[in-house]
This record gives sequence, structure tokens and C-alpha cells, in this order.
Amino acid sequence: MKNRIDEFSEYRNKMNDRIMSLDHLGIKRFFNLDTKAYENGALDKKTKELLGLVASMVLRCNDCIDYHIIECVNCGLEDDQIIEACNVALIVGGSIVIPHLRHAVETLDLVRSSESERQA
Amino acid sequence: MKNRIDEFSEYRNKMNDRIMSLDHLGIKRFFNLDTKAYENGALDKKTKELLGLVASMVLRCNDCIDYHIIECVNCGLEDDQIIEACNVALIVGGSIVIPHLRHAVETLDLVRSSESERQA
Amino acid sequence: MKNRIDEFSEYRNKMNDRIMSLDHLGIKRFFNLDTKAYENGALDKKTKELLGLVASMVLRCNDCIDYHIIECVNCGLEDDQIIEACNVALIVGGSIVIPHLRHAVETLDLVRSSESERQA
Amino acid sequence: MKNRIDEFSEYRNKMNDRIMSLDHLGIKRFFNLDTKAYENGALDKKTKELLGLVASMVLRCNDCIDYHIIECVNCGLEDDQIIEACNVALIVGGSIVIPHLRHAVETLDLVRSSESERQA
Amino acid sequence: MKNRIDEFSEYRNKMNDRIMSLDHLGIKRFFNLDTKAYENGALDKKTKELLGLVASMVLRCNDCIDYHIIECVNCGLEDDQIIEACNVALIVGGSIVIPHLRHAVETLDLVRSSESERQA
Amino acid sequence: MKNRIDEFSEYRNKMNDRIMSLDHLGIKRFFNLDTKAYENGALDKKTKELLGLVASMVLRCNDCIDYHIIECVNCGLEDDQIIEACNVALIVGGSIVIPHLRHAVETLDLVRSSESERQA
Repeated sequence: MKNRIDEFSEYRNKMNDRIMSLDHLGIKRFFNLDTKAYENGALDKKTKELLGLVASMVLRCNDCIDYHIIECVNCGLEDDQIIEACNVALIVGGSIVIPHLRHAVETLDLVRSSESERQA
Repeated sequence: MKNRIDEFSEYRNKMNDRIMSLDHLGIKRFFNLDTKAYENGALDKKTKELLGLVASMVLRCNDCIDYHIIECVNCGLEDDQIIEACNVALIVGGSIVIPHLRHAVETLDLVRSSESERQA
Repeated sequence: MKNRIDEFSEYRNKMNDRIMSLDHLGIKRFFNLDTKAYENGALDKKTKELLGLVASMVLRCNDCIDYHIIECVNCGLEDDQIIEACNVALIVGGSIVIPHLRHAVETLDLVRSSESERQA
Repeated sequence: MKNRIDEFSEYRNKMNDRIMSLDHLGIKRFFNLDTKAYENGALDKKTKELLGLVASMVLRCNDCIDYHIIECVNCGLEDDQIIEACNVALIVGGSIVIPHLRHAVETLDLVRSSESERQA
Repeated sequence: MKNRIDEFSEYRNKMNDRIMSLDHLGIKRFFNLDTKAYENGALDKKTKELLGLVASMVLRCNDCIDYHIIECVNCGLEDDQIIEACNVALIVGGSIVIPHLRHAVETLDLVRSSESERQA
Repeated sequence: MKNRIDEFSEYRNKMNDRIMSLDHLGIKRFFNLDTKAYENGALDKKTKELLGLVASMVLRCNDCIDYHIIECVNCGLEDDQIIEACNVALIVGGSIVIPHLRHAVETLDLVRSSESERQA
């Protein structure tokens, strides 16, 4: 059964393709810059994905949170490291972040459980 | 001559003392949680200060940016690491972050120059 | 039939339990501070729930709006008092708040209708 | 088959009627001001709808985006003009706007396809 | 000696007059709605000023905070009531609100001290 | 005598040069995209500057407001067109935008008065 993470990734890919098909140079370049911002550099990808996650949480965007949780897991961050980053977001952003903390923790659980299924 | 970083730190300390003197239990506990959120744990203080800096930049708060730039320097982060975090904030938050990027870079220059003076 | 208020409360409780099970001291203490902030004190709970509602509306968080509407009703606030608070949120936050005003009014109607059913 | 645009418009109309039935003078006057703000004046309606769209995108409200996309199409704006406005919103607001850009493009496609069906 | 509260009130009055002189009907009506939103009604002015203060704090606008602190004092609210409202704003909005809490407390002190001078 | 518009432009230029000197590819490319977003295209520069102004007002950034007011005047927009855009920003963003409306109107007056001096 597809969970909401798979549905989100499918929708995200479909709409990103549609946006690229608009062939707007400014938008295409911005998407390119966005991808490059999280590559290894003076800071490693792990740290940058945590930066992206905290930025997404304090700005309260569930889709962005999902994307960065998936990337955090993909690049090998541990749950307690991800939760520690969530705590920084909670303290900076306050109780208005709590619904997004619920979402983030649910997403992390879904991603870990897909991971276990694939390994089984 | 006092620069704006020293003035900010003085004002910050004075008003934090005043706020503590109000003796409001909720506020005192929140300040305490805020301090603890950046201590070494599952993530080290360096990473957490970068998280705080990016959160402050995308939420566009100059006082918070100043505080975290000072802390980033204090815990030994290099300029290119701090600037790389600023780039993530710029990409996530967009051109509305640019005035705060100017502020952050100016603050970093002021902090580094105070550092040089103290070492001279 | 379960309405979206019951579903929200169930999800909220389930995920809050999950978050507590992470056993992160900072997060647990923040949740505790959050609960205490709305208890009777220099201001009564009624006033504080209205403060929480207006803050949630101008920050545009539907889950937080639902939570505070439920609490407003639970502590005996009348509809015209709650609507008057919504008007302050609308004026401060502008037309971008209107979708959340729709949500708030729908939630208030759902909560009042559950109340009537229980009393019937 | 009803798509999400029709569902949104129906819900929007139903709840706006419900809000008007509350008969709160401040809220009614605000709704009136909101309608008038997009009428032809020193700027024409086309320009004002683009202003409303960009404001909705940088403030990241999907319902407001849907409303202004529908109005943009209704007053005769072309797709490349609407996309150009979306690009300004993306640059000002950053990657946190991307999920709302996906939503905006999907809405524009749905509105154009309803338009084609009606003309067929 | 004029303090920053007097300077703010003077600037605010001067620019409000200038804005009224633009004679834009929509802007004039909005200003009128804004004034009426805080008058006694289903909620009393005291409660509404606290709502305005908390909304201003979580949206982090120092000028709006100053205006509502002055109004809170004018309509007879006590310091511990105002501070309790600030605590709600701090919990909802997080540490990003702290610089505005400093500002709010400083403003409250300035307003109380002007009050004492006038009574002396 | 230098007014605050000249001081802002000087500071802006100085810090933009400093930021370019950091030679960070991502930041340089973003600045380039930002400039290009307001050039004539499917929408003309006039319309795009109004979009930038409204986005800056609802996101409440005075430096960005100053920049776009200067550009609006430079590309030949009339005062009543600029004020009409400000009204859209006020309605979308609510009373929290008022301090920035004051700033915008003051900036417009300063820019127009510099213009008159240069022509005298």
C-alpha cells in the first residue's frame, strides 16, 4: 500500500516535470540553485539537510519538511540527530511549530518503516 | 570606540536582566530551554549554532542573526562554513532575506575585526 | 459519524504520545510550558484562550485554531466573543487570514453541534 | 466529475455565506473592502489580480492562490504572464514557495482544462 | 527630554495625517475598521488590546507592540496582566519573539515612567 | 544633506560589493536571478516592480520596500498607481502592514522631493 510519503514524492516529481516543461529560464535556474545548495561544500550534505529541515520547520511547510526528512535519512543521519534539530526548530519557532513537529515525527516513522520493509 | 555589536550585547544583557527581574516562571523557564537547545548533545554546538543562524535568517530577525553569528565565531566555525549556511538561508527564504544577508556579513566582519584587535 | 474535529483530536493525541515517547527533555519541557501558559493566572483562562486563538489565526495555523476554538468553547466563551476575537485577527492579519476565518467558523459550528448532540 | 477547483469554490461560497450570516459589521466591511481592492482604478484589474497572486504566493496560502489564479484567467491574462508573476514570487519568497508554485501551476492547468471543456 | 515613545507617537501621527491626505478611499476605510476593532463590544477594550498586543508580538512588529502597550496602559491593565499576555506570545511564537519581548518590556517601563512623571 | 534614501543606497551598494567579494557561486547566481526577475518580459518592468513592492510590503521588509519604490519611480509609475498597489498590500496583509505603509509613503515623498531638487 502506498503511504503518504510515496504519494508526496510522486506528486512532487510529476509537478516538477510540469514546471520544467514551462521552460521559464528564471524558474529553471532557481530550481538548479536550490539543488546545489545542499551538496557537499564548506559544510557537508548532512549538516545542510539539517539546516534545510530547521528552516522548513520554522517556516512551517509540511512538504518541505517531508523532503528534508527523507534526505536526512538518505544521507545517514540518526533519529536522535534529526529530533535534536527539530527541538531547535521548536524553541526558535514556538508552539505554532508543534503541528509540524507531529508531521515531521510521523514522516520520520513512515520513512524508517519503508526502509525496514525494503531491507526485509 | 564601541561598535554596534558591543551595543547590542550590552542592551541584550541589560534587558535580559530586566526580564528575569519580572520573575515570571514561564518566561524564565523558556529562557532556560532556549539556552539548553544549543548545548552539545546528539548534535554538537557548532551544528546547532548554524541551525539557529539559518532559522534566524529565514525568519528575518537581525538581533537573532547577530547573536548566532557571535556564537558561531565563538565555537570556532570558519567564515566559509558560516557563509555556506547563509546561502542555504538565502535559497530557502528568497530575496527578502538579502537585507539580512547584508546584516549578517557586516556582523561577521565586525566580530572578526574585534577578534583581531583583541589578539593584537 | 466522526467529524474532522474528532479525527484531529485523535491524531493530535496519538502523535503527542509518540512525541513524548521520544523522551527528549527539551521537547517535553516545552510541551509542559505550553500547557501551563493557558492556565488561570494574572489573566484568566478565557482571556488566554482568546489570545491563543488570535495568535493562531494571524500565524495562520488551522490545527492551532481548532485546538483553541475547542478550548474557548470548553471554558464557556460565547460565540459572539469568539467571533469578535476573530475580527481582531482578521484586521491585524488581513485577507490572507480569510481562509482561516472560514475554517474557524466551520470548526466552531462543528463543536457547537457536537455539544448539542451530547446534551440531547 | 468535480475537480478540486469546483470543490474549493463551493466551500468558499458556502462558508462566505455562513460568515455573512454572523452579521458582524467589522467582518462584513472588511470583506467589502477586500472585493473593492481588485476593481479597476489607478491600476487595472489585471495588474491587481497579479499583485494579489504574488502576495498570496509569498505568504504561502493555497486557497488565496487558487482564488487569484481563477480571477487572473477570468480577466484574460495569458499563461506566460501568470508564470512570470509566479517567478517574481519564487525569487522574493525562495524555495519555501516551491510547493505553492506546484499548486499554482496545477490550478492553472485545471482552470484552463475546465475552460476548454466549456468551450467544447 | 523626549524618549523613543514620544518620538514614535509623533512620527505615527504625522505619517497617518500624510496617509489620510492621499485621500484613498480603501486605505481610509481600512484605518477606520482598524480603530473600531478595539472598541468595547462582545469583548471589552482591555481584552481586545491584549489580543492586539499578542498578535503584534507573534508577527514581530515593534511599532505595533508599542502602540498596543500604550493602549493597554491607557485602559488600565496591570503590568502582570500585560506580562502574562507577553508570555503567551513567547510560547506561541518562540525564541524569535525574544527581541520583541525585550522591546515590549522596555516600552512598558518607559510608559510607566512617563506616567509617574506626569503624576509628580 | 543626505537623506535616509541616499544612506540606504550607499550602504546597499557597499554591502552588495562586499557580498560579491565573498565569491560564493550560489549567492552570486541568486543575486543575478533576482536582478533578471524584474526585467521586461511577458510582463513589463513597471508591473514587475509593483509585484516586488507588494511582495515586500506583505512580507514587511522596509529595505525591500525602499528599493522597489525607487525602481517604481525610476520606471515612470505615477503616485496613484503606487498607492493603489500599497492598498492591495494593506488589504492582503492587514494592519500589521500599516507601519510599512507609513515607511513606503515617506520614502515615496523623499524620492519625489530628490527628483524635484535634481530638476530645479
